[in-house]
Amino acid sequence: MTLELAVYLIPVTLGDTPIEQVLPSHNREVIIGIKHFIVENIRSARRFLKKVEQSINIDELTIFELNQHTDRNNIDRYLDPVRQGHPVGIISEAGCPAIADPGADVVAIAQRKNIKVVPLVGPSSIIMSVMGSGFNGQSFAFHGYLPIDDDKKTARIKLLESRMYAEDQTQLFIETPYRNGKMMQTLLATLRPQTRICLAANITCADEKIVSRTVSEWRKRIPQNAADDVIAREIPRVPAIFLIYK
Amino acid sequence: MTLELAVYLIPVTLGDTPIEQVLPSHNREVIIGIKHFIVENIRSARRFLKKVEQSINIDELTIFELNQHTDRNNIDRYLDPVRQGHPVGIISEAGCPAIADPGADVVAIAQRKNIKVVPLVGPSSIIMSVMGSGFNGQSFAFHGYLPIDDDKKTARIKLLESRMYAEDQTQLFIETPYRNGKMMQTLLATLRPQTRICLAANITCADEKIVSRTVSEWRKRIPQNAADDVIAREIPRVPAIFLIYK
Repeated sequence: MTLELAVYLIPVTLGDTPIEQVLPSHNREVIIGIKHFIVENIRSARRFLKKVEQSINIDELTIFELNQHTDRNNIDRYLDPVRQGHPVGIISEAGCPAIADPGADVVAIAQRKNIKVVPLVGPSSIIMSVMGSGFNGQSFAFHGYLPIDDDKKTARIKLLESRMYAEDQTQLFIETPYRNGKMMQTLLATLRPQTRICLAANITCADEKIVSRTVSEWRKRIPQNAADDVIAREIPRVPAIFLIYK
Repeated sequence: MTLELAVYLIPVTLGDTPIEQVLPSHNREVIIGIKHFIVENIRSARRFLKKVEQSINIDELTIFELNQHTDRNNIDRYLDPVRQGHPVGIISEAGCPAIADPGADVVAIAQRKNIKVVPLVGPSSIIMSVMGSGFNGQSFAFHGYLPIDDDKKTARIKLLESRMYAEDQTQLFIETPYRNGKMMQTLLATLRPQTRICLAANITCADEKIVSRTVSEWRKRIPQNAADDVIAREIPRVPAIFLIYK
């Protein structure tokens, strides 16, 4: 396959899912044609590339790492291969690059420098959770992480709930897996009884769980004084997205 | 492949793209195992199923149509096949079902009745445009169509721009293809000069165009009094998403 002189945005699997379940075969063709990558995590990117194609010789590749430790003033040169005639691939640690990771900084530079950008199809827990929730998909907002501070978090949840009712807009956010149970308890203590919460956990994985219930219904399963193991059974400590809607 | 007793959300191609470019091979396996479908448009769904697998016998399938003309009181029975032990597939007219189409109503019923819902991976112009824009992917809001009325549309665009600056949130919306040029002119007349607009047109198709520029830069290409053919060259009359960010 002849590739374009472009920055390709290459999604990876979410968790230990087989490649064929979540990535089009086209992506493999693109990956095989690329020798220069910008990756969030070198080890996981190598593992992914080997999973896509056993015969890829990792040592032949040029791999730049881009994460929170990378000096932002240095990343323009990551696009030098494109300027020299070679396509570049961006690989995130999970899911779609440039969605909730530093890849967006490179894409922004590419756009400013008129370098073509080509996103490939792959698993997005954001879109798949909206699809599976039954909530409004004509209008929705993803907020990343909510504030860590309890008061600020509660205030933010109330703001998102009122916006959801006022604008008929599904609201999405994420939490660190080990805090999922606490997040659900905070939601149940903060939101109106009729508001619906969707928990979308381990999307595309064998134990995927996408469940929408009202606050009242969730409360029956997770009482205010629920034991940790009850909470952990209902709200697993795995990558998850929370959605709220009326 | 043994399917789960579930409602499968089955994405389709955007435009005339080859299946292998945008859908994992897993989706084909799922589709072959399903005999009951809920579809937005029967003709396009039939065409899609035949494209996925030439040997599918369409006459053997049970297909319910669900669109703006469907009586919402009638759709609960669309899930009867699941109750009788058969998986059901939902197919939209383009892209991911239940995102910007009536499929979400069926998913909401499935969730209420504790019927399992399984979203499959496919092309989403929303996620792919955020990936390709270089804009903030940690926080973004999709608003569907903006109001048609000119004054209301302008007011809405100003609201979204101020929210974008205040909350550091990428704002996305769509327009009917033949009005794309007019939408861009309205955006250029309404937004601040330094605000960036990404036009993401015909995503995944041969003439895909994902371009982010400031209002000032767009204005140089599309002057206020630009002739129709100049506008049409810059802003093609094809399915597109508009994104704004700082």
